Amino acid sequence: MAGWVYAYRLEHRMKSIRCLLLVCFVLHLTLAAPVRAGDPASAPTSDAPRVRVLVAYHSLRGNTRQMAEAVAEGVAKVDGAVATVKRVEDCTKEDLQAADGLILGCPTYFANIPGAMKVVIDDWNWKLKVDFTDKVGGAFTTGGGQTGGKEHTAISLLLFLLNNRMVVAGPLYEDEEGDDKWGELGSSAMTGPLDPGVGNSELDAARRLGERIARVARRMKSPR
Amino acid sequence: MAGWVYAYRLEHRMKSIRCLLLVCFVLHLTLAAPVRAGDPASAPTSDAPRVRVLVAYHSLRGNTRQMAEAVAEGVAKVDGAVATVKRVEDCTKEDLQAADGLILGCPTYFANIPGAMKVVIDDWNWKLKVDFTDKVGGAFTTGGGQTGGKEHTAISLLLFLLNNRMVVAGPLYEDEEGDDKWGELGSSAMTGPLDPGVGNSELDAARRLGERIARVARRMKSPR
Amino acid sequence: MAGWVYAYRLEHRMKSIRCLLLVCFVLHLTLAAPVRAGDPASAPTSDAPRVRVLVAYHSLRGNTRQMAEAVAEGVAKVDGAVATVKRVEDCTKEDLQAADGLILGCPTYFANIPGAMKVVIDDWNWKLKVDFTDKVGGAFTTGGGQTGGKEHTAISLLLFLLNNRMVVAGPLYEDEEGDDKWGELGSSAMTGPLDPGVGNSELDAARRLGERIARVARRMKSPR
Amino acid sequence: MAGWVYAYRLEHRMKSIRCLLLVCFVLHLTLAAPVRAGDPASAPTSDAPRVRVLVAYHSLRGNTRQMAEAVAEGVAKVDGAVATVKRVEDCTKEDLQAADGLILGCPTYFANIPGAMKVVIDDWNWKLKVDFTDKVGGAFTTGGGQTGGKEHTAISLLLFLLNNRMVVAGPLYEDEEGDDKWGELGSSAMTGPLDPGVGNSELDAARRLGERIARVARRMKSPR
Repeated sequence: MAGWVYAYRLEHRMKSIRCLLLVCFVLHLTLAAPVRAGDPASAPTSDAPRVRVLVAYHSLRGNTRQMAEAVAEGVAKVDGAVATVKRVEDCTKEDLQAADGLILGCPTYFANIPGAMKVVIDDWNWKLKVDFTDKVGGAFTTGGGQTGGKEHTAISLLLFLLNNRMVVAGPLYEDEEGDDKWGELGSSAMTGPLDPGVGNSELDAARRLGERIARVARRMKSPR
Repeated sequence: MAGWVYAYRLEHRMKSIRCLLLVCFVLHLTLAAPVRAGDPASAPTSDAPRVRVLVAYHSLRGNTRQMAEAVAEGVAKVDGAVATVKRVEDCTKEDLQAADGLILGCPTYFANIPGAMKVVIDDWNWKLKVDFTDKVGGAFTTGGGQTGGKEHTAISLLLFLLNNRMVVAGPLYEDEEGDDKWGELGSSAMTGPLDPGVGNSELDAARRLGERIARVARRMKSPR
Repeated sequence: MAGWVYAYRLEHRMKSIRCLLLVCFVLHLTLAAPVRAGDPASAPTSDAPRVRVLVAYHSLRGNTRQMAEAVAEGVAKVDGAVATVKRVEDCTKEDLQAADGLILGCPTYFANIPGAMKVVIDDWNWKLKVDFTDKVGGAFTTGGGQTGGKEHTAISLLLFLLNNRMVVAGPLYEDEEGDDKWGELGSSAMTGPLDPGVGNSELDAARRLGERIARVARRMKSPR
Repeated sequence: MAGWVYAYRLEHRMKSIRCLLLVCFVLHLTLAAPVRAGDPASAPTSDAPRVRVLVAYHSLRGNTRQMAEAVAEGVAKVDGAVATVKRVEDCTKEDLQAADGLILGCPTYFANIPGAMKVVIDDWNWKLKVDFTDKVGGAFTTGGGQTGGKEHTAISLLLFLLNNRMVVAGPLYEDEEGDDKWGELGSSAMTGPLDPGVGNSELDAARRLGERIARVARRMKSPR
């Protein structure tokens, strides 16, 4: 009889252990979950994008719009990132609040942001009261000439984003050998009379910008 | 006998389960560890700082050094962050590589970075071959006059950091009611003949810069 | 009789000489006139100002307007220079065309020119078709904080002017001993919560800007 | 006899008038002289150039030197203007003082002036004690990428010149119909891996820069 009694006790103890094991496993899953969510290699969850990047632009003749679309292509290369492309005047408070990344683009009007765009984005903080703290930003521009102000315009967009409490970054490059690595301040296309349209290397720059901002935004969004 | 045989089998199975449980537990600890390390609310680990911020400066008369020390005070406010203050010429390759955050500061020489500092930092990528990708950067400057170039110098430092593939940010502010929130591009002190020395609000700006960069660097360092 | 005949001939010749003398004198006055007009030491002509400087500003709370008036005081210090102070939206095509100097001023909105001002000045070239070639320009700004973007805004105004084919300059300074001489990019006032209002040294900077632009405009206007 | 007496008196008076006429003529020539010297249409005086433009550059691989030579070609298009091309480290105090115009050029090192060049030009005011007041300045740069900082470098050179009390300008453009006219901030060439070498439109930009600075310098040098 002692054998059965011992077996019974063992069986009872085993149930407790199984029970503990189950609790332990559930607990493990719960705790481990954010780890997987933060893992860049994991598959995106089906229902909702984890990183939202808003590409907001102003465009007159379509060059800047073309760049905006290339930026969005770059965003889409990053696992779990989704890009939305909108004209600045169409961005709602909800669009801006939902964004983890915000990439602004415009043509160059007299070496700076077009007035028609600045009046819109000046209101994002003041009227719409959007809090941009710790969102990740980037900038792209188009403009004629090598020294016509398209870079000053890109810097102006970056400073606008910093002034709105954001973190900013630019596209990454390296040479074929991988010996030389560098970054740029943003992405621009020369679109004046001397070099009409947007070239392949300029679209490549726009894609790199989108990809970088999405990556940094995903990293900033990982569990804190 | 059947009782003992059954008990023996149970005992054997229990060992396997215990063993599995142990493996499971160890696995759980391993996987869960980064979650805790990434939790801003958790206590810092005793042996090693989690976020290292290097405050590298150039100073002639001590004003910029004073700002550098205030920046370091701001870094120290962030749980788990440790600041090191060094003159740019004293920064080794190891210092630069170990840093999660890099905050550069200098006086304004003819509206820009002093030549004596630029020759040093130009070599960080080219000669020392430091890879700054995804480190978090910020900038502070000193200079005479309200429009003498100290802000252009701060922007120049930010662009230097972006060009070195870093992510950049600036200090955060809000008014007393919390209605109005904004950021700045960096921190500066007016130190010319009209306003000698570094004032309290300027040291406060430096502390805010240090705190912000440490916070963003910690967030960027959380598990990926 | 021969005496009278000789006297008559002499008289006749004298008339010719007097006539020649008169022509010569008138010619001399005509040719010499621009020399005097171009001479900085000469007295201003009574009927018309020789150098017109337009101070065009955007102001919300009056700080930038106060700076604009100090800029005009600086212009008035220059012999032969007259300043007109106008809000940018009140500047007509005639105002802009008549100006030898154009000094732009504004508050800092998110580290740059307010959108409400940029929409107005974007049209000066495009819609009003004003040709600004070789006019002389300068810039002044107001803004909160030491690194909030008021200098980037001043630079943005300068680049706007350069893009409109103007020549630009900034205020001049020297220390009391005259050993040290320097210039600044423009004039700014810190007007945020930390330092409300426009201080004396900032009004002095505005006056220096007005004086400098008037002097350079007068020099550019001297006979070519 | 009265006839001869009268004739004698007339003759005497005529001598006085002739004498006065001579004085008047000499005076006229003296006063009129600067007018002719200031006339852009007049021929250059044979012995000495009226406008000296110093093109001072830093170059590693020769691209910036090539741009410097094109700038000098542009200067030479202006009647009475003479260009000298020198490496910054070869510019003497005499070179700098003699220059009516000073055009600076450099490659882009991490979005700004190379440290090796900045250490040299920082000393022009401090050690060499050159007074640059009212000299006319311009800037040109080379650099890889569309947004790698070559424009920020050009702006940095302009601000350096403004800080040294100079007046600055950029190259002028107009479209073929002459409907559209604009200026740029300076002249730049894209010289990175994507677009090696200096192109024709970039050399054209350099020539325009040289021509513009020479013209403004000549106008600033006209009689005061």
